[in-house]
Amino acid sequence: MPFTYNRTVRFQDTDAAGVVYFANVLAICHEAYEASLEASGIHLKDFFTHPSVAFPIVHASVDFFRPMFCGDRLAVKLMPQQFSGDRFEVTYEVIVAEVVVAKALTRHVCINTSSRSKRELPDEMRNWLEKS
Amino acid sequence: MPFTYNRTVRFQDTDAAGVVYFANVLAICHEAYEASLEASGIHLKDFFTHPSVAFPIVHASVDFFRPMFCGDRLAVKLMPQQFSGDRFEVTYEVIVAEVVVAKALTRHVCINTSSRSKRELPDEMRNWLEKS
Amino acid sequence: MPFTYNRTVRFQDTDAAGVVYFANVLAICHEAYEASLEASGIHLKDFFTHPSVAFPIVHASVDFFRPMFCGDRLAVKLMPQQFSGDRFEVTYEVIVAEVVVAKALTRHVCINTSSRSKRELPDEMRNWLEKS
Amino acid sequence: MPFTYNRTVRFQDTDAAGVVYFANVLAICHEAYEASLEASGIHLKDFFTHPSVAFPIVHASVDFFRPMFCGDRLAVKLMPQQFSGDRFEVTYEVIVAEVVVAKALTRHVCINTSSRSKRELPDEMRNWLEKS
Repeated sequence: MPFTYNRTVRFQDTDAAGVVYFANVLAICHEAYEASLEASGIHLKDFFTHPSVAFPIVHASVDFFRPMFCGDRLAVKLMPQQFSGDRFEVTYEVIVAEVVVAKALTRHVCINTSSRSKRELPDEMRNWLEKS
Repeated sequence: MPFTYNRTVRFQDTDAAGVVYFANVLAICHEAYEASLEASGIHLKDFFTHPSVAFPIVHASVDFFRPMFCGDRLAVKLMPQQFSGDRFEVTYEVIVAEVVVAKALTRHVCINTSSRSKRELPDEMRNWLEKS
Repeated sequence: MPFTYNRTVRFQDTDAAGVVYFANVLAICHEAYEASLEASGIHLKDFFTHPSVAFPIVHASVDFFRPMFCGDRLAVKLMPQQFSGDRFEVTYEVIVAEVVVAKALTRHVCINTSSRSKRELPDEMRNWLEKS
Repeated sequence: MPFTYNRTVRFQDTDAAGVVYFANVLAICHEAYEASLEASGIHLKDFFTHPSVAFPIVHASVDFFRPMFCGDRLAVKLMPQQFSGDRFEVTYEVIVAEVVVAKALTRHVCINTSSRSKRELPDEMRNWLEKS
């Protein structure tokens, strides 16, 4: 069962076309990633605030099938997958009223933040990948 | 009992200082306002997407007492008050672990969006103000 | 010669990792698209604010090669291309100090906003595509 | 002569009401502050990315007189003022076509970021305050 993040579309997510601004859909998917990490016991403040090990996004893509409006209740399903010792990918489905309105993916690489050199995924991330 | 909106600080709320970017605190307060409207039965899409009657903010202010970090669980307490036939104000307290970390207020005026002239608050807003 | 949009990285573009938040790179590319439309004589307010014809993004992707920091001076090069009567694509290169730090693309489809049905690109967009 | 920052309203600044989202006006004012610091010779990356001395905002307010639309060319005039050894305030006027459409202010306090204790303004900030 994929992890599901529930999120109502807020006014600040929208633009003058009356719908969610395209890049904000990726930001909402990243919120789902954060919620999933937190659900597996990871401490978000330590994970994201000046950490020594980080997982920057090296690629992201998103397909839009239907517009999203202020007040829409989104369910974001998240499926992470490890690719190699230092890389993983997360795919996302954004669903409104049982219809998939967008799909996205983010590719991450594990680095030491001081040197920005690649390194193996730490245990807490392997654990998250296995459980998700 | 004031309406309370619960919200986890997300990575996109933060800035390179490692804490929530100051203007995003007002955006989080606006989310609380939206959640409160929704809880009183107002349909957010109609309310915010090209409506004929709107409640633009004419003044906003915010005081910051402590920084907020990614992963912090915020409780935003919201207290609206009507001031005249066409105006109301909302005050907000942002709380982390029972400590008030910020206070904010937004002042709104009711307008016809086509003419942008002021008008009396409609019944659904009077109702929300009385119940909140 | 591709259109180039110059933009300094602002504090609000960054996140607690100290670099530009990933989805904001797509937003910065969209700014370049807006600047290019404006340079070809298109009136941005009419184009983007409740228009009758719109060009929503149906796909976006972005590759990140190096992090971007507050104060970095970005040059965004933009290359649009028409694909069919109702579709076009824009590719972007984000450059800092002559190094490509990110590449992105957005795919757009032309619609009537009231019906949301596809339609041919209007003359001003064909003109922009030819000149760019 | 106050420092003036020129900025075109972008699509991502707007919301489903078709105008600039209220909190984004404060973010645009902060961009003017950053541009003014840069113009006085301050290195923005060092100033804003995990610095040892920082100037967090303890209070902000904004008054809105007219809505701002996508494509509007804003001129933001900025007037900083020192209040005590460790505090300063910046007032902002946002102007479209010679009409003031918003006014804002931010109050800052100087801290050591490791201890978060207050400290005297460093010379580069005194210098900026005197010249601005």
